[in-house]
Amino acid sequence: MKNIYQVPSLYEKLRQYSESGMYPFHMPGHKRQGPQWASPFSWDITEIDGFDDLHHPEGILKEAMEEAAVCYGSDASFFLINGSTCGILAAMSAAVSPGDRVLAARNCHKSVYHGLLLNQLEAVYLYPDYLEAFECFGGVRPEQVEAALSGDRKIRAVVLPSPTYEGLVSDIRRIGEICRRYDVPLIVDEAHGAHFPFHSYFPASALELGADAVIQSLHKTLPAFTQTAILHVRGSRISRERLEMFLRIYQSSSPSYILMAGIDACLRYMTGEEGKKQMEAYVRRLTELRQRLGRLTALEMLPGELKGQYGIRDLDRGKILLTGRKAGLSGPELYEMLRRCRIQPEMKTRSTVLLMTSLMDSEEGLDRLAGAAEEIDRTCSVGKRDQAEGCYRPVRPVQAMSIARALARQQEIHVGKGLEGRISAAFVYIYPPGIPLLAPGEVIDSRCLDLIRDYLEAGLEVHGILSEGPENMRIPVIV
Amino acid sequence: MKNIYQVPSLYEKLRQYSESGMYPFHMPGHKRQGPQWASPFSWDITEIDGFDDLHHPEGILKEAMEEAAVCYGSDASFFLINGSTCGILAAMSAAVSPGDRVLAARNCHKSVYHGLLLNQLEAVYLYPDYLEAFECFGGVRPEQVEAALSGDRKIRAVVLPSPTYEGLVSDIRRIGEICRRYDVPLIVDEAHGAHFPFHSYFPASALELGADAVIQSLHKTLPAFTQTAILHVRGSRISRERLEMFLRIYQSSSPSYILMAGIDACLRYMTGEEGKKQMEAYVRRLTELRQRLGRLTALEMLPGELKGQYGIRDLDRGKILLTGRKAGLSGPELYEMLRRCRIQPEMKTRSTVLLMTSLMDSEEGLDRLAGAAEEIDRTCSVGKRDQAEGCYRPVRPVQAMSIARALARQQEIHVGKGLEGRISAAFVYIYPPGIPLLAPGEVIDSRCLDLIRDYLEAGLEVHGILSEGPENMRIPVIV
Repeated sequence: MKNIYQVPSLYEKLRQYSESGMYPFHMPGHKRQGPQWASPFSWDITEIDGFDDLHHPEGILKEAMEEAAVCYGSDASFFLINGSTCGILAAMSAAVSPGDRVLAARNCHKSVYHGLLLNQLEAVYLYPDYLEAFECFGGVRPEQVEAALSGDRKIRAVVLPSPTYEGLVSDIRRIGEICRRYDVPLIVDEAHGAHFPFHSYFPASALELGADAVIQSLHKTLPAFTQTAILHVRGSRISRERLEMFLRIYQSSSPSYILMAGIDACLRYMTGEEGKKQMEAYVRRLTELRQRLGRLTALEMLPGELKGQYGIRDLDRGKILLTGRKAGLSGPELYEMLRRCRIQPEMKTRSTVLLMTSLMDSEEGLDRLAGAAEEIDRTCSVGKRDQAEGCYRPVRPVQAMSIARALARQQEIHVGKGLEGRISAAFVYIYPPGIPLLAPGEVIDSRCLDLIRDYLEAGLEVHGILSEGPENMRIPVIV
Repeated sequence: MKNIYQVPSLYEKLRQYSESGMYPFHMPGHKRQGPQWASPFSWDITEIDGFDDLHHPEGILKEAMEEAAVCYGSDASFFLINGSTCGILAAMSAAVSPGDRVLAARNCHKSVYHGLLLNQLEAVYLYPDYLEAFECFGGVRPEQVEAALSGDRKIRAVVLPSPTYEGLVSDIRRIGEICRRYDVPLIVDEAHGAHFPFHSYFPASALELGADAVIQSLHKTLPAFTQTAILHVRGSRISRERLEMFLRIYQSSSPSYILMAGIDACLRYMTGEEGKKQMEAYVRRLTELRQRLGRLTALEMLPGELKGQYGIRDLDRGKILLTGRKAGLSGPELYEMLRRCRIQPEMKTRSTVLLMTSLMDSEEGLDRLAGAAEEIDRTCSVGKRDQAEGCYRPVRPVQAMSIARALARQQEIHVGKGLEGRISAAFVYIYPPGIPLLAPGEVIDSRCLDLIRDYLEAGLEVHGILSEGPENMRIPVIV
């Protein structure tokens, strides 16, 4: 085989980037500030004598997971080396049988939709309230869950994201009570809330509030490697045996000791003295940051509470969601302005920019963000045309058939106007956050096409469609 | 949350182990000898600007995968960060529809059985020839595939492991021709053959020989991190769109740049000057090692060819399979003797020990193995009772229903004699290699129970059963 590589290696580019001075307001939560470990080649091993097998733990991994369960107060906790993705797939597969019906928030991550597909499930969707000014979903209301469960006794599980990507939680305590009343397991995708158990400044964890299974991405907001997560279970509504079987299915049979050692180190750090001290300092720094950002005039930050929408205990204040719509700034414009200040945000939407913080953020990093936002704020003036105006209302496509049924059918590609009224064979979504606008089996209507076109025109990347131009959109549909 | 950790961290134990002087004749193939990279925390990032998204690659990852496809001569190659496991699941899911029938070698890795479950497939099993003296399966014969496909026109895909865990390949060229004649895609689990394309001393890769999809574990025999693999496809019998969709499903939506940079570095190294030089040196060292081991009298090594069974091009001579049966040594006994010589083997069976080599092995390491084997050989005498005699014939359980159907049924636990004639609800297997002795839906017969009991008595670990004692075996069965 010939050597055709002309460009620097990926490792070299990553190393260069780490020295570039760009400040990371994105995942992973370790913010490149973890301990100085040796080159991973020297300690990346496999399940040999003296070590353990993640899929049948009997030694150090069993102990580490049992210790984690004690720390978190779960009945069992599982280290995940294939991200929250595999935890969501395993929890869903364990909780239901093929063909069952599931109640899911429509703003679930795509992995939940994949769980619907793999288990050939019928989905009943809940649409949470929508905060137009910040272009994001709020929490699911308990009354919505109650109404759905009382109206449809065939629902076998409930799946919700809490917090959302932007940090808004649902009232899991009340939703959990409702689910228990109907004896239906509640699975909470808490991917963005792994830091919740470590300080009361943040909302309470769904595990504490009565969910049956809770999945947390350790890498998103804690000092752990990308692709690591943890799954907690409580009670017996989800079979432990089935759950363990599906975790063996959705995770490599050669799990990485790099990732597992990273999980172990993260939990030790967070439960130790240093982690506690750093969480206190983080909350102090975050409070100051939010005070400074709260004083901006042209830019606005999603506030700690919003009357009639959510209270102070319902937002993860570690998430900084900014919009410049009052000053006529689009999300992508604000995003680029921040990047010019050597700040790398996590995500942009049409009208917002999301920045992620963690306990590993430095004083200097948060100060740089506040300074940059203040500078941008000064140079902009309120009252310009709101470029993002009217851009987005969540669409509610009609389901013609289940995802699994649609994907078992023959497909063909349709274009532009020819798409209207056809049934999608694709997942169409923006990533991040990876929430489908359109799932296979759903009818493509004009509002949905308009929305996708708006996104493309705003310069956002839409996955699942087959062309880039707003006018020449092609989507696979079923025949 | 309280700090309850009393013992050294997993990282600390891994670091200590790396300094213990134990020589690794097991995965990963980098043998802890990779380049001196910086602490992974400093370069573990996510899909931010300038980098790329594995699930929708458009930048450096797209280029890297396209370069890999050119190197390997595939139509497309995909980096996998959830092991060969996710490649096998994705290839199977893409190649068939739920409910289809699949032809699979019975010695497939458990991930193939998981693919049968997730896609609700019916399985037709092929039993390869069995080499009793070395307690391992040989290759699948083309005539077996021909007979199966001609006798059952409902078969929609063929799945084979080649090489086996012990290094024996099937005649993929002829099997590929047969599959093309019946227009059925051939998926080859080449997890243990990632090094094949890099030197003619090793068997040819299935990719070259006409398979439709080939999955290789990079970490097993090449210098790459554990949990990394690559999937190659050729032709159009497997839909590229479906394949990419299922790869997005079975892999974390936050793929690790540590793992991806490791894949990139591995391919660069292998196709570069240094890799070529090291492969030449490896083959020289391996030839010498095999000559020394071939001269042993009490111990025997699976030879490069075995008349009537397989030829010189059918064995991966990088695998060293030793048995001491002529000297009355069991596999576990020989394994412990090697460990006392500071040699860590990969696997033991009742009567054999498997040692894995790679191009990263040092002269000193291979010399230590040869020296230890010669020493053991001198202290043993031929002619003792063969402890492993008659221990194992592959069992052929009768299928009462598909795996998916069995797992959808109610289960209960049965014990000992009460198990006979019941239908298993569990995967029962030894890991490694992770080949099920019994799958859900199969009838538990006395030969199968005897075999499991034999394994337990030999001190091997059997997964899927619920007790350790041979006399008190409990297995979940369907009601």
